[in-house]
This record gives sequence, structure tokens and C-alpha cells, in this order.
Amino acid sequence: MANAKNVSKAVVSRLPRYYRTLRELATEGVKRISSKELAAQMDLTASQIRQDLSCFGGFGQQGYGYSVDKLIVELERILGVAASQRAILLGVGNLGRALLRNFDFSFCGVRPIGAFDTVPEVIGCDFRGIPVHDLHELEAFCERERPDIAVLCVPADQAQEEAERLVRCGIRGIWNFTNVSLRDDTLGIPIENVYFTDSLMKLCYHMKDTDPFELGES
Amino acid sequence: MANAKNVSKAVVSRLPRYYRTLRELATEGVKRISSKELAAQMDLTASQIRQDLSCFGGFGQQGYGYSVDKLIVELERILGVAASQRAILLGVGNLGRALLRNFDFSFCGVRPIGAFDTVPEVIGCDFRGIPVHDLHELEAFCERERPDIAVLCVPADQAQEEAERLVRCGIRGIWNFTNVSLRDDTLGIPIENVYFTDSLMKLCYHMKDTDPFELGES
Repeated sequence: MANAKNVSKAVVSRLPRYYRTLRELATEGVKRISSKELAAQMDLTASQIRQDLSCFGGFGQQGYGYSVDKLIVELERILGVAASQRAILLGVGNLGRALLRNFDFSFCGVRPIGAFDTVPEVIGCDFRGIPVHDLHELEAFCERERPDIAVLCVPADQAQEEAERLVRCGIRGIWNFTNVSLRDDTLGIPIENVYFTDSLMKLCYHMKDTDPFELGES
Repeated sequence: MANAKNVSKAVVSRLPRYYRTLRELATEGVKRISSKELAAQMDLTASQIRQDLSCFGGFGQQGYGYSVDKLIVELERILGVAASQRAILLGVGNLGRALLRNFDFSFCGVRPIGAFDTVPEVIGCDFRGIPVHDLHELEAFCERERPDIAVLCVPADQAQEEAERLVRCGIRGIWNFTNVSLRDDTLGIPIENVYFTDSLMKLCYHMKDTDPFELGES
């Protein structure tokens, strides 16, 4: 088995898409798929797919394609999504509530075990079985429950401070929705910054071609 | 000026990050930056940056670096974010509210002009000046106001149906938060699907190396 540590960022960033697509195929009852068929589904080339998956050992059989179920299990191992990580969420505003209420954490093998806020009206509430605690209890909670991941939905001006606090609490990874760039090299743990702006800008870019008012490029 | 149409997906997906980083630098008062300094900021290589920007003409001067302000203006043109696109939002649940209340649409040159829902308690509300209309009025509103972009935050089981409806209403691009894969090749307009799962899975992947219980790969 190839060691996954030297895999390029581009490959890593495609892995969740592979996983998502394969889970969709499994739901539709698909058992085997060729790299060509998978390529068509994902808008990639077949050789790109073969190359990506070979980084991790290569699970296909010439002429037989890939077993969808096997590939899912392998991707779960590679992505580390089968590790049953436990998550807490900080900041139960609209976005925090949307995630607690509707986001399928279990798809990524993550289990939310608690949420935290400072607003008295929210503390003590429950979202799909996840209780909201007083943010002051964060340290005691983390010492007791040892969560792995923190979902950061606090206001931007509290992002850096709360992130540092979470690191001190032993959190091992931050999923950051604050729109403030947190850096893993300064915090010392993996950070995933979510920027909604990036995807909206990509949409704008792709809409340029369809803009009826677009002037030709010189 | 190079035509932007033949630029690779990988380059396009990095452009919003360039834009975001440069806007941050401008806010900090930085006027000029070398590809080397920009590379350090963005965790890329200097040659990668020079190569990416050369796709669009190349705005750097040997030995002088890039003018931050000029590069921002060029990226706005390239990304199409200076086009003052008008947006509507469908589905004013928690996520829809989070976007209406907190998301900086103007950063991407987008202006939200209306939101739509079916829940009587929400219709008639106002979020930062954006009124919520009855979803039944969508057709009449679009005919009158001609919005460009739709932000789709409806429940998953309504995603495809509402997307098709939006296309019939003349919408030119969909920013899709429903977690249902909408395809631009079937809908005929650009779609940007936002998958929260992808970034959480990437976080899990990067946490693998730090997992105290991780077994060594064989």
C-alpha cells in the first residue's frame, strides 16, 4: 500500500468528491464501475482517475473496473472518515444552527457531542439531541469528553482567540466558518477554512461567458 | 491580453484565493508584492503564482513584483466579480438567514435584492434590508427585476424542481447549498454546488497524521 503522506494537495482535494460520488452510486445500487464511467460522472478523465487512485495503491482490476463498495471502504480509510471523530460546535447562531439541524456529520464519520454559546436563551437548548452548553464550560467539557474536532461559527472578531483556546483544550482540528483565515502553522493543528466567497466567485467567473452584456475581450 | 476561456479548472479554482489574499494585503496597506512573498502567504510556489497569473496576461514587472491594487482590479475583471450581479435567495431557513444576515455578498460584487420562502411567518420579514417574498411570487418578481444569480437553500427534495423553475425564470447562475448535485449540463446554466462534507473530509484527512491512535501504515 502506498503511503498516503506524499500525495499532492490536488489529489487530496479530489478525494472527498470521489467519496461523495461513490456513495451516491452505491445508493443507486451500482456495484462496479470503470474509470471511464466514473470519469464521466465526475467530469474528469479516466486516466486522471486511474492516476489519482494509484497514489493510494490502485484498487481497480484491468477490464473489471472498480468495486464501488471496496473503493468506498478504502477511501474511508484514506480520508480518515471512519475514525468516529467527536466534534463540538462553537457559536450557535444561524449558521451554527443550520449545521446542527441539517448537516449530515455522520457522512464524514463525525459525531457532534456538544455545542457552546454565550447567549442565555440558547444555552440549555437542544438540536437533534446535541445540547448547547455555556461557553464558560468549554475547558471542563473538553477535559471530560476529549472531543477531536471543533466547528467554529463564532463572530469573526472572536475567531483567533477561540481557536487558540480550543488548541489549549486539546482539540486536534478546526473546521472554521468564521471567514477569518486561521493558519495551521501558527495554531499547530490542522485547520480547514471554509470560504463561501470562493465558490460564489467561481460561479461569477463561469457566468461571465453567458453574460448578455459582456464586451468582447480585446 | 490572454483569453480567459482556455484556463484550466485548477487555475480557476485558485483565482478566488488570489483575490481574497490580495484584498487582505490591500487592507493591511501593502502596495506591492513579489511572487515569492505572495507564495509564502498562500502556501504555493513563486513559479506557480507567476505561471497562474501569466494565463491572464501577467501583470508583474521583473524585479518590481506586482501592484496589489492593479492585480485586484484585474482579478475582479477576470473573475467577473465587478459585474454587479443581482441575486435572490430561495429558502430562508437557518442557512438562508445566516447568508442574508452575515455573508458579505458585496465582496464578490453581488447584490442580494430579494429572498423567497413559503412559511407565512417568514414572508414579509426583512434581513439587512432584503425583503422575504412569497415563493409563489417568484415568476412575477423575476420578470420585473431580472436577477442574475439564485442562492438555493431549499430542502434537498425541492432542489431539482426549484432549480428548473429558476432556469425558466431567466436566472443565469445557481449557487447551490442544498447538498443535491445539480448539473450545469442538464440545467444549461452555470451551477456552483457547495458541499460542506468535502471540507470536513479534508480536515479529517489532515488530522490522520496527528491521530494518537493511528496505526502505522503497512
